[in-house]
Amino acid sequence: ARPRVGYFYAGKSSNQLLGDYVRKLTVKEHKSVPVVCQEETSVYDAICTMFLEDVGTLFVVRNGGILTGVVSRKDLLKSTMGGQDLAQTPIGVIMTRMPNIVTCQLEDTLLEAATRLIYNQVDALPVVKESASGKGVEVVGRITKTTVTKVFVELGEDTPV
Amino acid sequence: ARPRVGYFYAGKSSNQLLGDYVRKLTVKEHKSVPVVCQEETSVYDAICTMFLEDVGTLFVVRNGGILTGVVSRKDLLKSTMGGQDLAQTPIGVIMTRMPNIVTCQLEDTLLEAATRLIYNQVDALPVVKESASGKGVEVVGRITKTTVTKVFVELGEDTPV
Repeated sequence: ARPRVGYFYAGKSSNQLLGDYVRKLTVKEHKSVPVVCQEETSVYDAICTMFLEDVGTLFVVRNGGILTGVVSRKDLLKSTMGGQDLAQTPIGVIMTRMPNIVTCQLEDTLLEAATRLIYNQVDALPVVKESASGKGVEVVGRITKTTVTKVFVELGEDTPV
Repeated sequence: ARPRVGYFYAGKSSNQLLGDYVRKLTVKEHKSVPVVCQEETSVYDAICTMFLEDVGTLFVVRNGGILTGVVSRKDLLKSTMGGQDLAQTPIGVIMTRMPNIVTCQLEDTLLEAATRLIYNQVDALPVVKESASGKGVEVVGRITKTTVTKVFVELGEDTPV
């Protein structure tokens, strides 16, 4: 047999290599800071928070971090069309509520999180971990389509992601 | 000199390979269909179109496709907070207007488009080409953070993107 010289790399195609590399990226390394509000926060204040913090999704928590809901820009836009008094409506009545929230964990790969974003047609996932009290999950981060787009740009720029 | 056997691949690191692959993806191959409205469309109707078509950004056109503006979910949310009559306000007064619109072209790489999404902090870019009349640019597609996230998922799944 001839020795393999030159264009072989451990028998893997460049496509497979690419996949291997992408599959090693983790949620833990790439998550950003979550922006949260309380169930009692008014829709009006939630919209202001969203603009001030410049995020597309707010996570709703109680008791210092237990996740109870998620509100997207789309949910808020819908509620502003409803003609209610936004300053009097608590975010709790329009949010998507646990357990109907798609989440991810620190140990998940970024690929798993990205797949969930696409599959569930959402813009952001809360990164959660079991709370110390055992009652529910605590929000510790945020993975969004912006996170994934940034990583894609870094891949293309040859910078370590 | 010893012959190079095994773990060498044309002298490139797997990171560089990845970059090479990512840089070959084009806007033309990955763009999706643009959703458009007219300058005279009311803010109310624009919001309905956005929900019906399930997109986060509308492109505003005149004369069968010449780009004049862009409206995001964020712009619409802001306008619903202003207390105007949404059915009476034309989208033309709240849209971001040419030439202040970040665009991309069919021949651009997806990496260039993704970089512009991040750098300019927008959710979507219109894909444009010179119009036949020479007056302005025509909208022929849409590249969004969702587009890029989908491609990222395909990279990780070893499917050709």
